[in-house]
Amino acid sequence: MTALDVPSGRPARVATPAPGDPRLARLSLNQRTTANWSLREAVDGAVAAGLPAIGLWREPVAETGLETARKIVDDAGLRVSSLCRGGFFTASDPAERAAAHEDNLRALDEAATLGTTALVLVPGGLPPGDKDLAGARTRAAEAIAALVPAAVERGVTLGIEPMNPIYAADRGVVSTLAQALDIAEHFAPHEVGVVVDTFHVWWEPGVHEQIARAGERIVSYQVCDWITPLPADSLLARGMMGDGHVDFPAFTRAVAAAGYTGDVEVEIFHADVWAAPGAEVVATMARRYVELVESYL
Amino acid sequence: MTALDVPSGRPARVATPAPGDPRLARLSLNQRTTANWSLREAVDGAVAAGLPAIGLWREPVAETGLETARKIVDDAGLRVSSLCRGGFFTASDPAERAAAHEDNLRALDEAATLGTTALVLVPGGLPPGDKDLAGARTRAAEAIAALVPAAVERGVTLGIEPMNPIYAADRGVVSTLAQALDIAEHFAPHEVGVVVDTFHVWWEPGVHEQIARAGERIVSYQVCDWITPLPADSLLARGMMGDGHVDFPAFTRAVAAAGYTGDVEVEIFHADVWAAPGAEVVATMARRYVELVESYL
Repeated sequence: MTALDVPSGRPARVATPAPGDPRLARLSLNQRTTANWSLREAVDGAVAAGLPAIGLWREPVAETGLETARKIVDDAGLRVSSLCRGGFFTASDPAERAAAHEDNLRALDEAATLGTTALVLVPGGLPPGDKDLAGARTRAAEAIAALVPAAVERGVTLGIEPMNPIYAADRGVVSTLAQALDIAEHFAPHEVGVVVDTFHVWWEPGVHEQIARAGERIVSYQVCDWITPLPADSLLARGMMGDGHVDFPAFTRAVAAAGYTGDVEVEIFHADVWAAPGAEVVATMARRYVELVESYL
Repeated sequence: MTALDVPSGRPARVATPAPGDPRLARLSLNQRTTANWSLREAVDGAVAAGLPAIGLWREPVAETGLETARKIVDDAGLRVSSLCRGGFFTASDPAERAAAHEDNLRALDEAATLGTTALVLVPGGLPPGDKDLAGARTRAAEAIAALVPAAVERGVTLGIEPMNPIYAADRGVVSTLAQALDIAEHFAPHEVGVVVDTFHVWWEPGVHEQIARAGERIVSYQVCDWITPLPADSLLARGMMGDGHVDFPAFTRAVAAAGYTGDVEVEIFHADVWAAPGAEVVATMARRYVELVESYL
């Protein structure tokens, strides 16, 4: 019986890699990909599929309890490839920015407790009614600078995630890898790095050169596809690798050539993926990963 | 009785400028903003509102007939600020690219007949199944180069329109003003210029510097807003100026400082705008224009 891919329903093009398959050695399940799974279910699902790592989100970690989450992950023997997400520090109100700083300190504590060295930072959007994009970008850079000492103290690297311009107004004012690197390069690579997410930067002119420029600053490589037509909810527009327009082989070669040796997270936000049984989602992503990504690492 | 703005339904903040108001001297109605009007209705609507110019699209011009369209516009005494749109020349099949070239020659003829000096070029997206974005961008640049002699012969300037990355896969592979200028600068300014459309480039890092770099290459300044949440149909995501996140005063100052003295086209694609009576749409756009754009020209 042929396995069917999620969410396309098309027959799988490659066999599902079995646990122990060396091609899975760097594959991480970002837990948002299986959003309907609890943290424990996601850990169990990753282990069952033979994955060595998981990318955690703060909200489900908080629901589970930080120490319990750490224990679940440790007992399962999984690496935590990253913690999503700090950031959201572009408020114009100084009190709100101070609160965001405090919240990011807690995120750093959580990352350290969970044993990951990468805290993913999503800068945040424009404050309501504020149209000064350059100002918001400056505040994001200042907030990152203010976090660096605490990050160093905890042995966590801040990973700036440039976001597709589709989210520039309401989610992430840092729009290109070049812009993220302009901020990161004020600091040492172990202090501030960047997240390379194919969905966000696939369209960026010169992105391969920017990946080479990033070099050891790449703290996380996240994969998912840009699909068209864009779903009605633009927050759920991230597709399964191979279902859209991203050239994963070329992207992955560039990331490998830059020296990245870490885990590769699959992070998909898509209503049909979320509605599917988690184990089938994980099986599909493992197949697509070995076909389109792993061979080029 | 207070006028209500379209599509917000909120009371107008400024009085509607009357025909003859000198602040209307550079305002152009891009006819897609009143998509349900025929070409003749759009011309009549522009004249009734006191606008001196109109931006035409090839499809309604063809429906009306090219010579008839020219006569309607001439009789009304309107300038044609631009013709939308040539381009769509990224096909991987050489025969399709040759057909696109022929079609663009016809577009140049139409522009010359209509008396506009600006043909707006939308480069086109990735061919089906093709993931080589850099290759598609190269083909777009080559196709533009091949059009230059015919454009010069007809006295028409090719205006490359960089498109918001939201459309990089399916509509326009040139994603930034910087990238458009990299292509345009291989030619003289009267041969190849750029279209500055706020919706497409409002998020671009360093866009004000790129506008300054563009200088006399700006063949058209098009305004509409980036609104959130993004409507379900991402092709209809262009809002009325002031309803979204774009800083029109700052943008307009930059365009003016670059030396642009041409018409300013309002080009809105939005289901609620299209559903509203055309005259109310034109009245709203004239109010928003004098408030947010004209004062900064």
